[in-house]
Amino acid sequence: MGKKDVEKIVIALGGNAILQPGQRGTYEEQLKNVERACEQIAELVVKGFNIVLTHGNGPQVGNILIQNEQGAKLVPSMPLDVCGAQSQGMIGYMLQRTLKKALANMGCKAEIATIITQVVVDRQDPSFGNPSKPVGPFYNEETAKAKMAAGESWIEDANRGWRKVVPSPEPQKIVEAEVIKKLIEAGVLVIASGGGGIPVVEESDGVYRGVEAVIDKDLAGQRLATEIGADMFIILTDVPGVAINYRKENESWLRAVSLEEIRRYEAEGHFKKGSMNPKVKACLRFAELTNKPAVIASLDKLLEAIEGKSGTRFLPS
Amino acid sequence: MGKKDVEKIVIALGGNAILQPGQRGTYEEQLKNVERACEQIAELVVKGFNIVLTHGNGPQVGNILIQNEQGAKLVPSMPLDVCGAQSQGMIGYMLQRTLKKALANMGCKAEIATIITQVVVDRQDPSFGNPSKPVGPFYNEETAKAKMAAGESWIEDANRGWRKVVPSPEPQKIVEAEVIKKLIEAGVLVIASGGGGIPVVEESDGVYRGVEAVIDKDLAGQRLATEIGADMFIILTDVPGVAINYRKENESWLRAVSLEEIRRYEAEGHFKKGSMNPKVKACLRFAELTNKPAVIASLDKLLEAIEGKSGTRFLPS
Repeated sequence: MGKKDVEKIVIALGGNAILQPGQRGTYEEQLKNVERACEQIAELVVKGFNIVLTHGNGPQVGNILIQNEQGAKLVPSMPLDVCGAQSQGMIGYMLQRTLKKALANMGCKAEIATIITQVVVDRQDPSFGNPSKPVGPFYNEETAKAKMAAGESWIEDANRGWRKVVPSPEPQKIVEAEVIKKLIEAGVLVIASGGGGIPVVEESDGVYRGVEAVIDKDLAGQRLATEIGADMFIILTDVPGVAINYRKENESWLRAVSLEEIRRYEAEGHFKKGSMNPKVKACLRFAELTNKPAVIASLDKLLEAIEGKSGTRFLPS
Repeated sequence: MGKKDVEKIVIALGGNAILQPGQRGTYEEQLKNVERACEQIAELVVKGFNIVLTHGNGPQVGNILIQNEQGAKLVPSMPLDVCGAQSQGMIGYMLQRTLKKALANMGCKAEIATIITQVVVDRQDPSFGNPSKPVGPFYNEETAKAKMAAGESWIEDANRGWRKVVPSPEPQKIVEAEVIKKLIEAGVLVIASGGGGIPVVEESDGVYRGVEAVIDKDLAGQRLATEIGADMFIILTDVPGVAINYRKENESWLRAVSLEEIRRYEAEGHFKKGSMNPKVKACLRFAELTNKPAVIASLDKLLEAIEGKSGTRFLPS
């Protein structure tokens, strides 16, 4: 593949792919979990693709929140935006080291950079009046009610207890997009916008303030992919792609779909809110805005997915 | 100043400048503390200097360690290298936002990037056999003895209790130096090597492993400055510069010193270990290796220090 044909691909990795539900969450476990994805990404780099990697941080920032709360008598707790920045440093370090190792094993010396990334949200976003994204661990009713009395929003999960909810506003702009573009142009593999980015509102031109919110990592990944002019946007997850009638008798996995088709399935309610729905929405937006393909595929099938042999591909018209 | 004359300056900011001793350490306090330094750095950017900012993380990583320990029953504690990566994300976010605000207030739109930075140390470094750098909070004797029985190294401070000590190896190489150079060339203000960098040993070419250690942030800053070809290295601290006979009747602040002169003072024991000594060592090394000036100055006098009107300047011969 000639230098001029190199394709820019943004890959979004789920936070659950890094720290699997049910695991205790030691650093060794997390390192082990990302190895397979990093090996596949390294193969793409060797093949000449320009890769930008983004990732979730749900379980990780959840653990940081627990540590903050447990240590609160001794150390001031950090706000959620700062905990997000911490998780970007932690996960970025893990990914850049694991990617570098995978590349070294293939005899490749690519440069890698983790960029601490802020993502602008609109302070008028309706989600600020309707917090719905659960963060952190489950608590008992007493704790939840005390926090609610102090102005926080909490919801009850039928079986597991109470959880704090925060707004999940739409990503508007990647503050560090220019920096990321410059790195891509220089041939650097970039890790960016971890956990959906650090949510900030723009108070005036160039002046930002962190807010207590969580941006969906796939929607933020789509913004990133669109702003840097990516040729493809891929969301890696723990299922083979997008299914209609998921987990029903007539479950059917989609391979290549037109945007019209997938919009129809979406309207029919096939995609679960907080799970497949934002992934589908992110891919739809990318394909609509850029006229380039988006893919949802299994973590284990990245290479096949790029070649169109696995996953669900959103075909722009 | 023409584009070609732009000078590259590496500025090292102390962790205590960000979270002052005696403060509780809320995020708001830390943001406020860095404002003055960021305003001065913004002025330099406007004047056309290329700036790379590095910083300490002592108080911040200390707090993260406390949170890890307090939460240990619920969440696996992260190793020290990972806590360091978290502190780079946290402090980098704070600095990049504050710098961007200061620049915006001057009508300047410079791009800023925080780079998660690994620094290679030699696994044969003698410090691994002689841990001496205190990390985290003070504990009572009982806790310390139990940890020592489990293989850790601890020291007793006459008045304040026991503290864990870790190796403080010499920085050998900045893993992300090429990335940082590319960003500087593209005119980006870079924040890098926070807390002395994440200490890693190189297991084979390009394969790194994190180690439990703390690299002195000024020595790591010197390595960074040397590797990227900086024209000046400045360490900002809470005193006006370097003094001989510090806090004695005949205390005398140095303004411009030859390397020969400062080496003599060093040999005479004028500079306190763990405080001014590593700063002097870092500046000496930079001036020796690059034949360019290094400066130790007060946090409030960055602009004057660059013009030679404040601080202590190490003059290469």
